[in-house]
Amino acid sequence: VKLLSTARDLRRRRARERSRLFVAEGVRAVEELLASPLTLRGAIVTEDLDGTPRGRALRAALASAVMASGADLLTVDDATFQTAAGTESPQGVLAIGTQPERSFASFPAVGPIRIVVLDGVQDPGNAGTIIRSAAALGASGAVSLPGTVDLWSPKVVRSAMGVMFHFAAFAASPPQLLEWSSRTATQLWSADAAGDPVPVAGQLPPRIALVVGNEGAGLSPQIAAHGARSVAIPLAPGVESLNVAVATGILLHALRPAVVGG
Amino acid sequence: VKLLSTARDLRRRRARERSRLFVAEGVRAVEELLASPLTLRGAIVTEDLDGTPRGRALRAALASAVMASGADLLTVDDATFQTAAGTESPQGVLAIGTQPERSFASFPAVGPIRIVVLDGVQDPGNAGTIIRSAAALGASGAVSLPGTVDLWSPKVVRSAMGVMFHFAAFAASPPQLLEWSSRTATQLWSADAAGDPVPVAGQLPPRIALVVGNEGAGLSPQIAAHGARSVAIPLAPGVESLNVAVATGILLHALRPAVVGG
Repeated sequence: VKLLSTARDLRRRRARERSRLFVAEGVRAVEELLASPLTLRGAIVTEDLDGTPRGRALRAALASAVMASGADLLTVDDATFQTAAGTESPQGVLAIGTQPERSFASFPAVGPIRIVVLDGVQDPGNAGTIIRSAAALGASGAVSLPGTVDLWSPKVVRSAMGVMFHFAAFAASPPQLLEWSSRTATQLWSADAAGDPVPVAGQLPPRIALVVGNEGAGLSPQIAAHGARSVAIPLAPGVESLNVAVATGILLHALRPAVVGG
Repeated sequence: VKLLSTARDLRRRRARERSRLFVAEGVRAVEELLASPLTLRGAIVTEDLDGTPRGRALRAALASAVMASGADLLTVDDATFQTAAGTESPQGVLAIGTQPERSFASFPAVGPIRIVVLDGVQDPGNAGTIIRSAAALGASGAVSLPGTVDLWSPKVVRSAMGVMFHFAAFAASPPQLLEWSSRTATQLWSADAAGDPVPVAGQLPPRIALVVGNEGAGLSPQIAAHGARSVAIPLAPGVESLNVAVATGILLHALRPAVVGG
């Protein structure tokens, strides 16, 4: 019962920030949580989970994990489960985990690096997709600035497919970002229709933090004042624009260091 | 009242296919519909639409458009509106339009071309985002094969931001695609982790149809049997993968003809 009320609480950002806990919902995300170094605090399942071999395997893995860690595993009926779940069709399984402590110290201070900075990305699906892309395309991490959706919200966790369980995604302030980028000679680049063409691979600086914002809105004032270098993706004439997660994927691919891209 | 029942009917794919009508929901999509060559068949609004200058302008534009075309404009209360709306937060406005007649004849038969083929893309958000990217990145059209979500579903229309109102997106069968690609010397390319690296711009064929599928699933048998050339996006080691809309954006950008990419 305590697990149920905790899971319900964790639908609110403030509760997640205070407790440093989060909820992973659905088979894929909970599998990723179990495979990650993060601490499992408990899990809630329904009988539905036993409907597939993958679900049965996950329930068995959860049972082992809670036995090893002293966490709780609660089986409830569908209606009760829905009161705790924060997303649609959570497949009869959710788990509560502890948010890891992360900071810019996670990143190597020298050598080629790419990170993504989410500056006012409010849509959880876009934020999760960007984190997933960053991990897949060889970036070292994803940093969220104020104005961005909470990276530990259930919808972000789901759309990132739990990548943040083992990938350095964390929140920071603009001064923290600027101090780190200055100290480690990491250039801030941003996407802007009026920017320069993307340089060819041989002409890229070794260290880039790609700042991506809300579609339509610009960068936050502190970042804009710092003078990020803006690069453009050439678009067809007309009023079309790209979804922010698609634009971020294109730029991460275009800006990847030669050592990653092969 | 006829408009209301029509809008409700059009939430079902079968009703859209039979009537060749569709619903555009939300301010942006309805604006795009009015600016497009498609025929407006009617619109439903609530008083809420008058809450912003943009909404008031849209209501005025709808009033002019229906007067010119003999269509109906219906004002209803919120609760009634919600019974007709197929997506969340449709902003107090929806319009009904006629689906255009389109086919491969829309495309130039000679010269450089890029099109996207959606082969089993079931998520409406991904399908809409892919269509939006195709238009923005200079492709000539987007073709959906069976197994793909209906391109005229309200969710696809919304996530594409109404791009299909003026961009050649349409459904076709595998034989139609194969006949066209063969007749016009258009190569079928697909994304596959085991594929070749993307060639440099100078080594691309002039005509490419990029086939993108359901994440995880392969291409449909008829397309796979035809032997599409597969290209890979280099990914970081590990289990990560890309969202299909992000992967499509990266490949469309990487495969764009020199004339588009500048």
